Amino acid sequence: MSIFDGFLSTPQALTTFGGHNFVAAMLRFEAALARAQAAEGLIPASAAQSIVGTCQVELFDVDKIVRDSGHAGSVAIPLVRALKENVGLFNPEAVAFTHFGTTSQDMIDSALVLVTREAIALVEADLLVAIEALLAHAERHAATPMLARTLMQPASVISFGFKCVGWAAPLVRARNRLRRAAHDALQLQLGGVVGSLAQMRAARGDATDVALARAAAVRARMAADLGLRDGGADWHSQRDEWVALGCELGLLTGSLGKIATDIALLNQHEVGEVMEPVEQGRGSSSVMVHKSNPVASMVALAAAQRVPQRVAALLAAMAQQHERALGAWQAELAEWPQLVMAAHGSLRALARALPGLRVDPARMRANIDSVRAGLPPAAAEEWFGLGLADGAGLLARERTALLRAQLAA
Amino acid sequence: MSIFDGFLSTPQALTTFGGHNFVAAMLRFEAALARAQAAEGLIPASAAQSIVGTCQVELFDVDKIVRDSGHAGSVAIPLVRALKENVGLFNPEAVAFTHFGTTSQDMIDSALVLVTREAIALVEADLLVAIEALLAHAERHAATPMLARTLMQPASVISFGFKCVGWAAPLVRARNRLRRAAHDALQLQLGGVVGSLAQMRAARGDATDVALARAAAVRARMAADLGLRDGGADWHSQRDEWVALGCELGLLTGSLGKIATDIALLNQHEVGEVMEPVEQGRGSSSVMVHKSNPVASMVALAAAQRVPQRVAALLAAMAQQHERALGAWQAELAEWPQLVMAAHGSLRALARALPGLRVDPARMRANIDSVRAGLPPAAAEEWFGLGLADGAGLLARERTALLRAQLAA
Amino acid sequence: MSIFDGFLSTPQALTTFGGHNFVAAMLRFEAALARAQAAEGLIPASAAQSIVGTCQVELFDVDKIVRDSGHAGSVAIPLVRALKENVGLFNPEAVAFTHFGTTSQDMIDSALVLVTREAIALVEADLLVAIEALLAHAERHAATPMLARTLMQPASVISFGFKCVGWAAPLVRARNRLRRAAHDALQLQLGGVVGSLAQMRAARGDATDVALARAAAVRARMAADLGLRDGGADWHSQRDEWVALGCELGLLTGSLGKIATDIALLNQHEVGEVMEPVEQGRGSSSVMVHKSNPVASMVALAAAQRVPQRVAALLAAMAQQHERALGAWQAELAEWPQLVMAAHGSLRALARALPGLRVDPARMRANIDSVRAGLPPAAAEEWFGLGLADGAGLLARERTALLRAQLAA
Amino acid sequence: MSIFDGFLSTPQALTTFGGHNFVAAMLRFEAALARAQAAEGLIPASAAQSIVGTCQVELFDVDKIVRDSGHAGSVAIPLVRALKENVGLFNPEAVAFTHFGTTSQDMIDSALVLVTREAIALVEADLLVAIEALLAHAERHAATPMLARTLMQPASVISFGFKCVGWAAPLVRARNRLRRAAHDALQLQLGGVVGSLAQMRAARGDATDVALARAAAVRARMAADLGLRDGGADWHSQRDEWVALGCELGLLTGSLGKIATDIALLNQHEVGEVMEPVEQGRGSSSVMVHKSNPVASMVALAAAQRVPQRVAALLAAMAQQHERALGAWQAELAEWPQLVMAAHGSLRALARALPGLRVDPARMRANIDSVRAGLPPAAAEEWFGLGLADGAGLLARERTALLRAQLAA
Repeated sequence: MSIFDGFLSTPQALTTFGGHNFVAAMLRFEAALARAQAAEGLIPASAAQSIVGTCQVELFDVDKIVRDSGHAGSVAIPLVRALKENVGLFNPEAVAFTHFGTTSQDMIDSALVLVTREAIALVEADLLVAIEALLAHAERHAATPMLARTLMQPASVISFGFKCVGWAAPLVRARNRLRRAAHDALQLQLGGVVGSLAQMRAARGDATDVALARAAAVRARMAADLGLRDGGADWHSQRDEWVALGCELGLLTGSLGKIATDIALLNQHEVGEVMEPVEQGRGSSSVMVHKSNPVASMVALAAAQRVPQRVAALLAAMAQQHERALGAWQAELAEWPQLVMAAHGSLRALARALPGLRVDPARMRANIDSVRAGLPPAAAEEWFGLGLADGAGLLARERTALLRAQLAA
Repeated sequence: MSIFDGFLSTPQALTTFGGHNFVAAMLRFEAALARAQAAEGLIPASAAQSIVGTCQVELFDVDKIVRDSGHAGSVAIPLVRALKENVGLFNPEAVAFTHFGTTSQDMIDSALVLVTREAIALVEADLLVAIEALLAHAERHAATPMLARTLMQPASVISFGFKCVGWAAPLVRARNRLRRAAHDALQLQLGGVVGSLAQMRAARGDATDVALARAAAVRARMAADLGLRDGGADWHSQRDEWVALGCELGLLTGSLGKIATDIALLNQHEVGEVMEPVEQGRGSSSVMVHKSNPVASMVALAAAQRVPQRVAALLAAMAQQHERALGAWQAELAEWPQLVMAAHGSLRALARALPGLRVDPARMRANIDSVRAGLPPAAAEEWFGLGLADGAGLLARERTALLRAQLAA
Repeated sequence: MSIFDGFLSTPQALTTFGGHNFVAAMLRFEAALARAQAAEGLIPASAAQSIVGTCQVELFDVDKIVRDSGHAGSVAIPLVRALKENVGLFNPEAVAFTHFGTTSQDMIDSALVLVTREAIALVEADLLVAIEALLAHAERHAATPMLARTLMQPASVISFGFKCVGWAAPLVRARNRLRRAAHDALQLQLGGVVGSLAQMRAARGDATDVALARAAAVRARMAADLGLRDGGADWHSQRDEWVALGCELGLLTGSLGKIATDIALLNQHEVGEVMEPVEQGRGSSSVMVHKSNPVASMVALAAAQRVPQRVAALLAAMAQQHERALGAWQAELAEWPQLVMAAHGSLRALARALPGLRVDPARMRANIDSVRAGLPPAAAEEWFGLGLADGAGLLARERTALLRAQLAA
Repeated sequence: MSIFDGFLSTPQALTTFGGHNFVAAMLRFEAALARAQAAEGLIPASAAQSIVGTCQVELFDVDKIVRDSGHAGSVAIPLVRALKENVGLFNPEAVAFTHFGTTSQDMIDSALVLVTREAIALVEADLLVAIEALLAHAERHAATPMLARTLMQPASVISFGFKCVGWAAPLVRARNRLRRAAHDALQLQLGGVVGSLAQMRAARGDATDVALARAAAVRARMAADLGLRDGGADWHSQRDEWVALGCELGLLTGSLGKIATDIALLNQHEVGEVMEPVEQGRGSSSVMVHKSNPVASMVALAAAQRVPQRVAALLAAMAQQHERALGAWQAELAEWPQLVMAAHGSLRALARALPGLRVDPARMRANIDSVRAGLPPAAAEEWFGLGLADGAGLLARERTALLRAQLAA
């Protein structure tokens, strides 16, 4: 809610984690629960019908729910209260079957999973755009000679294509790892008050094993309904798969930060080798008409500084007490959207800028020449010969082809 | 803008860093600038009048400005544009004198200082409440015997008053350090495009020293007008005094986290020595009627986990490039409100809960007895004699008096 | 080198990252390079023989190399100098072929990979011990009733076996993810000065494609020789796979921190449900004979606080400039051993303590009874009925069997 | 103990926090305690004499004590054991008066304070060197025109002297804040087992107030003996003043990181305005003879990335349980030397490099000209006129004088 929250993210990410979308996701959880419990005979079909019919975000005062969450200490409390009130208006008997056998954390975690899935889809789409842009540059400039720089000093000669494929490879790997981590993390949370689904088991007086099978069936139905993985157990205070997804977003942001670091350096007036595209109303100064600031790099660099701290917060929050944490879970909830919003901000900024990068092979060449001029001819040729770009070019082409194949697989 | 942003903070802190309040602060900066520049003869009085008259937040579409900040890469760009448009409606000649001799960063940093001053006032007020509550408990329970625990094992006997004064002392120190840090940090930012106030100097063709004196006079007038310190120089990319204030909030949150840790432990069913007050609609469960969760500790513990990461982000962002950073400044802007909001959330939660803590001397005594029962009589008496509370009580009274004296000073 | 470095780690981890072992690993790199280059005809066999023969750590003054690394700005510089000197003593002609076509970073990164592989083996072994201990407890106490606690308040009844299997599952997942991450991360670093293996390509005047193939063959041979993965490219400034391994260690430490948090709480005198084993000379106080401190939890909790910051440092260091970073790479090098050492310290402490946990079913039962005593009979039975442990027990057995099957797979 | 521990620090800092120096400091604590207690009549003078005589580090096997600390869970346990053994060899009756009325934490914290005082002295000395170097450059190049750069793009013209004074001012402020923080933090720790000095109070059967006064007198004597502040209370689990000192080191490292960032950018081949001094055997490459790496910037940038995480760890560790923490205190102990060592590494590297910076006014001028060449004449003159350096020069001289006056005060 600070004025700077949106500035380094994207409108879509903001909407995804906004009150309206989140309350809607919590209601989708409650509706799916009711449907699954009715199907398994745990609640009457008529109650489920009323609950499902009421689970429409338009029927709720989202702002009030968000506002009341501070006092209650949880966003689930005011929503469950409002949901029961609304259900009661239509079908008083259904109230007792609303939010049955579950708990705040089931609802909040599952809703966070649902909206995160939307955010991951945004990330995946923008990731492809960024990769494609880099591979196109890699092919176009496969053998364009440019300085290689180590410890920020000229070291030798590579090609711009070689550099681009070096930027692209971690993004392709990030895509693969992200998918795997998302597969693990995007799972239903359903454990009831303490993870053992005890209330649902108790509902019909069945033998323990029968009751357990029924509760497991509810979980399986809900997962299928919501399109989430059924992990076979609750993860109330075992957050490793969830935080692992956060780590992947941290790694992605790090790899984007590396690209932004390089572009920011190449985009300096004195280097002038690669410039961010000029876009109307973006990157201008409030007073200096001659300025054209590399805003995409700025956003990605800001994220590269902020996101590691979010990941640290998630990791530190893993030491959760007993069956639901006091403080650590809530801290994790608050950090999570910030992490995803910053990561997507970084990715979107680069995905938008990379296709239009203005590459200047002449400046690249001039910078090489300038280094050569200061060296004895033999050293100039050994370390800064333009021919070095050919080998780099061959590598660039090989690796680009390999990455394309991996993307197609 | 995530649904969890407000949940661990306070409505006041949210409002303080919200779009409306921040845009209003930026406009206060522009109005003060115009007044000061007119007083120093740098811009016409009529222009200043028009600018000042236009600097009213009600005349601006705050949501649009916030929304446009993402594309522009700065919240100042759309505001300056809108301000000039609005000024132009009333007095076209004043447009050229609007935002004169300054830059985005002057405006944004100064506005952030202005709204932070409001937040610090909230912190100071709640800090006093918390300290008073603790000192009252320290007096009431000066010699009430309770277990001292080291490495989470019974170690010996102190008194609850001794414990309370131990909680209070860091808060009194935090108050002192915070004031000092706020004094340093709450300063005007005014350097013009690159910190040297060059444009203002150039405005009248004076000799350099005369022009410099005039620019310094503008800075002094503005600082007086806005009630901020005039630090004598810009701090565009020298952020130490600003981040030092952030560190103090980090330290405060750490000391609050210590209190919350202890209360959360004492509030356990099996310990039962100190319980958070029961408040209608706070800390209840969505399903378990028997639950009464220690929500204040929860909020303070969550902050104690999140705030260190915010401080780390601020410190890491200090390595700012040249005269205005690419990424690091923007990261700092985004982290700052999160830090203050979480710190105030923690403080408010405890300030609200501490006065009503339910202290149970009988349970304290029973827990001591239980430890004594497992020890040989001599050891029981040496380490867990109730008389040990007397000395602790004397210390508690002495220290409480000292802290009261420090508060009064 | 601080007095506290070993205190929270293990002797083995300290040795692994100590000077002797690391210099030995750098020498293994150089020997493997010489062998591979000789096999591919890039250097004379006689030179390779001399280099390989000299690559024995006993021939080097490790302390001096470490000491000189500060002045040089790299540990590779003094080692390469000493290596060439030593090679020159035996075979002056081989000096020019020593450290040929490679660079400091190839050597340091590869050596760090080699010693990290040893550390990962330690981790894997201790992980199995910890998992086995937890699964044994899970079976033994599958249906032993104990309080479930949410937000640090009694919530309902589960079984201790259910809790143990909840602790074990993330460790089994960590083991799987760690293997995958180690597979990716434990790869050879070989790129030559700027990643393109240019010097090796230039060595024989071959056509570019032939030369590239030869350089790739050297990389493949070295990888096979050292038992490392050949990733097909350098990763000088693309650190995602490496840092991903760091993230996994962070996740593992987080899951261990959760276990330690729970044990520390259960080990409190007033709770008394699960106690760390008593071990001669471990966990005693310097003065209080009655103390028995839960040292394993202490070590794991300390790691759970420190490791997230190490991961953040690694992630923040990913924004590396160009072909070799100035500062970020070096920061990563320094953080890495600290991360692994702390993670292993945590794991070893728990692996050692978990088998001997002293479980007290009677206290578990008494604590349940105490909660029941404060509730109306119906609520007591609904939420704290001992029968609830049966369902939890069934789940515990089911899940234990599943985890055993996963381990066996 | 990792091979990279010394690489980014200084030999002096390593020695300061090494085993020998730390054990010596713990022994100084024990000797001062014995002296003070004898003076107050709490232990026999002959016992004190034996204890003091034995408190010589040469009599102890430091490596064994460090090694045993891992098993014991504390470095104090093996030292106290060895101390009592050694005392017993000379005077068996003195054993019972050894380490009397105190606890591990008193000893370890006080020893850490003592060695930290030595490190702070190193920091203060190097800080002055760095400041002097910057002020000398500021005077010499007060009006040397150079580009000002915002968001890494040319923005206008300042002078190099203006830049240098901008670098110096935060260091002068850091010096002031550091002194204040060190004054607060460098205090004796003496609270006995749980902070209330209970054992010392109990020693002579005095009335409580008399006994308390005596214990306070012991604390005052010890503080005077060791040259530490007597804060009037223990700070076993109230770490704010200690961590505040850590924050100051974090702020200093941040300000140094800003300088290093700028130098690294100016030191680029294509910019070439300011170069680090060339020093034999420092910053060379293992293969590229043309390389001269800016090693001082490298060290300072590495610290700027690592130190914020250390500060975060200290802040997060403030939430310490009860009268002595389980995990958090130990984590803090381990982080502290790392923080100080990295901070001093950064400072020393810059203090050594700054005096010899190679400044190239011609390149500064050429870079300005290059920007001017791309602009219309009016804009070139408005924003990039060389005359702009005059005003900056005047400011540089003014501010240098002010800083010199502050240093002299």
